[in-house]
Amino acid sequence: MKAQWPTVAIVGVGMIGGSIGKALLARKLASRVIGVGRSQASLASARRARVATETTLDLAAAAAADLVVVAAGVAAIPGLLDALDDVVAPGTLITDAGSTKASIVSAWERRRRSRRGRFVGSHPIAGSHRRGADAADATLFTGRVAVVTPAAATPARDAEEVATLWAALGSTVFMMPPREHDRILAATSHAPHLLAAAIVAATPAATHPFTAGGWRDTTRIAAGDPELWADILLDNAGQVAGAMKRFAVAAEKMLSAIEAGDRGRLVTLLRRAKDARDAVGS
Amino acid sequence: MKAQWPTVAIVGVGMIGGSIGKALLARKLASRVIGVGRSQASLASARRARVATETTLDLAAAAAADLVVVAAGVAAIPGLLDALDDVVAPGTLITDAGSTKASIVSAWERRRRSRRGRFVGSHPIAGSHRRGADAADATLFTGRVAVVTPAAATPARDAEEVATLWAALGSTVFMMPPREHDRILAATSHAPHLLAAAIVAATPAATHPFTAGGWRDTTRIAAGDPELWADILLDNAGQVAGAMKRFAVAAEKMLSAIEAGDRGRLVTLLRRAKDARDAVGS
Repeated sequence: MKAQWPTVAIVGVGMIGGSIGKALLARKLASRVIGVGRSQASLASARRARVATETTLDLAAAAAADLVVVAAGVAAIPGLLDALDDVVAPGTLITDAGSTKASIVSAWERRRRSRRGRFVGSHPIAGSHRRGADAADATLFTGRVAVVTPAAATPARDAEEVATLWAALGSTVFMMPPREHDRILAATSHAPHLLAAAIVAATPAATHPFTAGGWRDTTRIAAGDPELWADILLDNAGQVAGAMKRFAVAAEKMLSAIEAGDRGRLVTLLRRAKDARDAVGS
Repeated sequence: MKAQWPTVAIVGVGMIGGSIGKALLARKLASRVIGVGRSQASLASARRARVATETTLDLAAAAAADLVVVAAGVAAIPGLLDALDDVVAPGTLITDAGSTKASIVSAWERRRRSRRGRFVGSHPIAGSHRRGADAADATLFTGRVAVVTPAAATPARDAEEVATLWAALGSTVFMMPPREHDRILAATSHAPHLLAAAIVAATPAATHPFTAGGWRDTTRIAAGDPELWADILLDNAGQVAGAMKRFAVAAEKMLSAIEAGDRGRLVTLLRRAKDARDAVGS
C-alpha cells in the first residue's frame, strides 16, 4: 500500500510534533518526514529520537510536502501559517496541533481568498508535562481524541482529509466549530490548569512536607511550561473566564453547605462529583 | 528484641488500619494485633489480607492491648474514644489516625481528669482513594510524614511514645498543636479535595470525552468517599473556608492578569507555581 501522504513536513519537533512524525513512520503513512525546528539542538534531539527522516531549520523545505503539520505553541502558529503559505506548493493540506482553535482559524480565514494552501485546524487531546523530541511516543494518539475544527468556509473534503490523519494515528475524531472547541477545552483543560496553579500558589512552602498524593495529583499540571500555558490562557481568555465563573459557582455551592453544616447537601454534592469522576475512569 | 507493644488493638480495619496492622507485624513491633471491625465482612477481608492476628466485632477486646490505634472516619472517633476508655486497662496508650485533629483532641481533653487511658492524637499523611483491608500495604507509612498533636496538658512522654510508633513504621514525625495541624491540612488536603470536586461539578458530562491527563490528575481525589470527606470538611469548616479564601485570591490574581492581557504578569505567576510544584516532586 502506498503511503497516504508520501512526504510530510512537521513544523516544531517537540514532544507533540515528534510523536506525530514517529507515528507516521511507524504506521508507514509517510515515507519521508521533514522535521523543521528552531535550533540545531532541537534538530539533533529529533534525529536522536528518530522522529523524522530529515531535519532542517529552513521552513522552505515544506515546499516538498504533501501535508504540513504545525506543532508549535499557539502564539506562534498564525505567523508560521502565513510563512508556510508563502512556500508550500499550491493546494497543499496544512493543519496544526494547537491547544486553542478560534484565533488560529480566524487568522487563516481572514485571508482565505489569497491562500495557496488548504488549512484546517486541529487539536489532538494528548500530551503530558514532558517536553522535547526525547519524550516523543509513536502511540501518543492511540485511543485518544482529536478535534478537527473547520471554519464555515472550509470545504468538507479538506476537513475530512485532516480527520483521516488523526484517525490513521489511532485517535477518535470529533469535528466541531473552533469556538465550540475552545469553550469545551476551557472547561476540561485551561481552567483546570489555572486552578492547579492557584492551588500551588495558595499552599505556603512551609506546608509542603504535609502534602500527600491528593495534592500532588491535583497540582501536577501546574508544572507545565509557563510560557506555553500563558499563551493558551490569554488566547482563550473569554472562555477561560466563563469556565472559572462556572467553577466558582460549583465551589461556592459546596462551601455554603460546609458553612451551613448541611451534611446531607454536602454528601449529595460530593457523591455527584464522585459518580461523574468515576465515570471518566483513571 | 522484644516487640515494642506486644499487643496492639486496631479499631477500624480498613485501608489505613489494615496497613498499620500489617506494618506492625512485618516489622515485628507487635506480636499480637487485634483487629476490631464493624461487620463480619470487614473482619473477613482483614483476615484475608492478614492485617491482624485475630479479629472481633467486640470493642472490649481492647482490654488486652498495650496500645490502641483508632483508624475510623473522623466523625466516629470521639465516640469510639469514649467507648474505648471504658474498657482499656488503666494507663493504656491510645492514638488515632484521623484527618482532622482539633475537635477529636478537644473531645478527649474535656474529660481528661476522668480518663483511664492516655490519648494523643495523630495523623499519618498517607493513603489513597482505595478502601478496605484488601488495599492495606505494610509500606504505606515508609518515607511519609506523620503528625502527632499533643494537647496543652498532654505529658511529653505520651506524645513521644506515639511519635515512636509512627517513626517505627518508617515515617518522619512532626509534632504540633491540633489547630496548627488542621490549618495546614486545610491548605494541603481539605481545600484541594473540595476544589477537585468543584472542577468535576463544573465540567459538563458532554465534555468528558475531551478530558486528558491534566483533568484526570487534577480531579482524581474527587473519587474519594463522599461520607468520609463530608465529615472531614465539616469538622474543619473554619480552616477550610480560610484556605478557600486564600485560594480564591490566588486564582483571582491569575485571572486578572489573563483578563488584562498582561502576559508578563501571567508568566511570572505561572512560573512561581511551576517552581513551587517542581520543588515538591512527582
